[in-house]
Amino acid sequence: MTDRALSFEVLKAAPADGSTRARLGRLTTSHGTVDTPVFMPVGTNATVKALDPDDLYEVGATIILANTYHLYLRPGHGRIARLGGLHRFMAWDRSILTDSGGYQVVSLGDFRSVDDEGVTFRSHIDGSLHHFTPELSIEVQQALGSDIAVCLDQPVPPHSSSRAAVTDAVGRTHAWAERCLAAHDRADQALFGIIQGGLEADLRSESTRVVGGLPFAGLCIGGLAGDETAAQRRAVLDIVVPLLAGDPRPRYLMGLGSPADLITAVDAGVDMFDSVLPARVARNGTVWVRGPEGRLNLRNARFLDDGAPVEADCRCRACRSFSRAYLAHLVRADELLFYRLATLHNLTFMVDFMADIRAALAAGNFPRLVQKLAQQRPAAIAQRVVA
Amino acid sequence: MTDRALSFEVLKAAPADGSTRARLGRLTTSHGTVDTPVFMPVGTNATVKALDPDDLYEVGATIILANTYHLYLRPGHGRIARLGGLHRFMAWDRSILTDSGGYQVVSLGDFRSVDDEGVTFRSHIDGSLHHFTPELSIEVQQALGSDIAVCLDQPVPPHSSSRAAVTDAVGRTHAWAERCLAAHDRADQALFGIIQGGLEADLRSESTRVVGGLPFAGLCIGGLAGDETAAQRRAVLDIVVPLLAGDPRPRYLMGLGSPADLITAVDAGVDMFDSVLPARVARNGTVWVRGPEGRLNLRNARFLDDGAPVEADCRCRACRSFSRAYLAHLVRADELLFYRLATLHNLTFMVDFMADIRAALAAGNFPRLVQKLAQQRPAAIAQRVVA
Repeated sequence: MTDRALSFEVLKAAPADGSTRARLGRLTTSHGTVDTPVFMPVGTNATVKALDPDDLYEVGATIILANTYHLYLRPGHGRIARLGGLHRFMAWDRSILTDSGGYQVVSLGDFRSVDDEGVTFRSHIDGSLHHFTPELSIEVQQALGSDIAVCLDQPVPPHSSSRAAVTDAVGRTHAWAERCLAAHDRADQALFGIIQGGLEADLRSESTRVVGGLPFAGLCIGGLAGDETAAQRRAVLDIVVPLLAGDPRPRYLMGLGSPADLITAVDAGVDMFDSVLPARVARNGTVWVRGPEGRLNLRNARFLDDGAPVEADCRCRACRSFSRAYLAHLVRADELLFYRLATLHNLTFMVDFMADIRAALAAGNFPRLVQKLAQQRPAAIAQRVVA
Repeated sequence: MTDRALSFEVLKAAPADGSTRARLGRLTTSHGTVDTPVFMPVGTNATVKALDPDDLYEVGATIILANTYHLYLRPGHGRIARLGGLHRFMAWDRSILTDSGGYQVVSLGDFRSVDDEGVTFRSHIDGSLHHFTPELSIEVQQALGSDIAVCLDQPVPPHSSSRAAVTDAVGRTHAWAERCLAAHDRADQALFGIIQGGLEADLRSESTRVVGGLPFAGLCIGGLAGDETAAQRRAVLDIVVPLLAGDPRPRYLMGLGSPADLITAVDAGVDMFDSVLPARVARNGTVWVRGPEGRLNLRNARFLDDGAPVEADCRCRACRSFSRAYLAHLVRADELLFYRLATLHNLTFMVDFMADIRAALAAGNFPRLVQKLAQQRPAAIAQRVVA
């Protein structure tokens, strides 16, 4: 599929035997290529927390997500545009995807009201009143100059929303999708639509058909990674992805972040992911490991005398130079270096985890990898963490 | 001067014309060479706040200071020794100087009492009771394995202490110097003595003769960088340094950190410095610049639209890639990356400032540099900041 600003090539389609819907792909944006399935670290305020661009290159990140809501409020999209755009502002020359701001408006701001025109909300920073419309969301994202922009939608909690609320939100999301398309005219930026529908099978099908029928460069699956169970999420993916089986566009499940959740979603046919989870748990003192434990809480006293690295075979900066004992000391002393090292480890873990998935897809043994991981660390695979 | 563990070569002595007492030197420890005059960044908890060792290599630091008091309390010197010593613990393979803990015991702990035996204090972390003696300070520093250890002394505020209090502290400092010497037996570690005496001319002279008469590898000038004025500090240095004119050992003024204070102290004949100041003001949002302003407070709104780097000709990571506008955004958003970038800038500023001083000393035009800086930015030179 080739848009003006984005191409997506399926390098290896899902096998005909139905053993998995996972596929191997390559996305090309105005700022480079991105092998899929891919995990995108989140750089909320034009920085992936605690890291600089060289850190992200070292991690191996090829695309990051930046938050439209945050950058609109501070420092302001106009200011970033005058300073040469988001890539130059944060000195990151690889790909950037911006979200629409819709999720943050509902979850972070002092939410006021939503109507067919848009959303009125108060800033979480200074309480000032703002009105977000599909047209403004596109204007902000075009000013930021991300490689991939995303439509303003109305997300609702999938499990706890009534059918009436989901119906309402789906209708509004579809109307806004058309308005975003009409407003978007930046030639070097691709635009993704968002499929909603909560856990309602018929509404998900309808939304997939409606949004999938519009000329977007890619399709987001929204309204998940919320309060649903893993089984409910899988059921939704098993509705949406088969309807897109012949569709040559990338599929992006917004907000999912645990390794166990990601491999399941890849298996269901998803190409792109983002989450603050790896960085957030790192800042809380937890690092992810491949072994049966799945994770280590470095605040635990048993690590204070542990001279081994977090993971002996990990290529990250934390594991190359430092012991668990040193990291356990840093986190207890609340030293800033801890947050950088732990974030570097967890993001490297995610990038390498996705690389392992891609290697298995290329070799044709992805179903075996899913099975192996489920046996090797059932606790980690069973765990479900909402970002 | 050659100790078992340290050599100090005066590459260019102070000129005979008395235009300055500044000198150019080279210190060699068990972990490398250090050109003097030198500024040592402070790594209190076995990390220079916000930086990793690669950052320090990039800055050009050749020696850092670590705090005995902090590491004794957390994670414990025995633990660090079992993990292979401080260099390995923090993955820093250049030189380390440890202070004695005396200053922190008096300034940070809930201070209980000092007698001829030692100091009893409460931990600032958990309130636990500790007794520090000269022998324990040496034991801790030997366990840490720093390249340069320092005697336990009794510092008193120079300006606000009575003559009786200073006399008392000087006597105790001298007795403890002998006990530290007797207790010290680590062959790959040098030991520095500390000259005290507050602002009392005769007591400073006596302390210089007594401590200078003991077989230390270097001499600290303590009890300054406190509540004294710049003129009072200069007067003390003008007593101490001439008494050490023929002494082949390095002179280290503890705790001084502003560029203006440092160049004055170099002029007075000091070789080594340490301070938390450059890193602390960075974390508060202030970066140092060579221009007439002397410093920029990046919290100031005027920087939010300033696309220029902090300093156009600065080689640091912050100036190479980012604008003042980006840094001003990061500090307002309280982003961790700000603290790293601002610290990198200010420490690079200090390292390059000391390199400029050494270049001027080598070229024989140091007095001209002092004069030029005083004219170029009188405000900065006049400023006096206590670390």
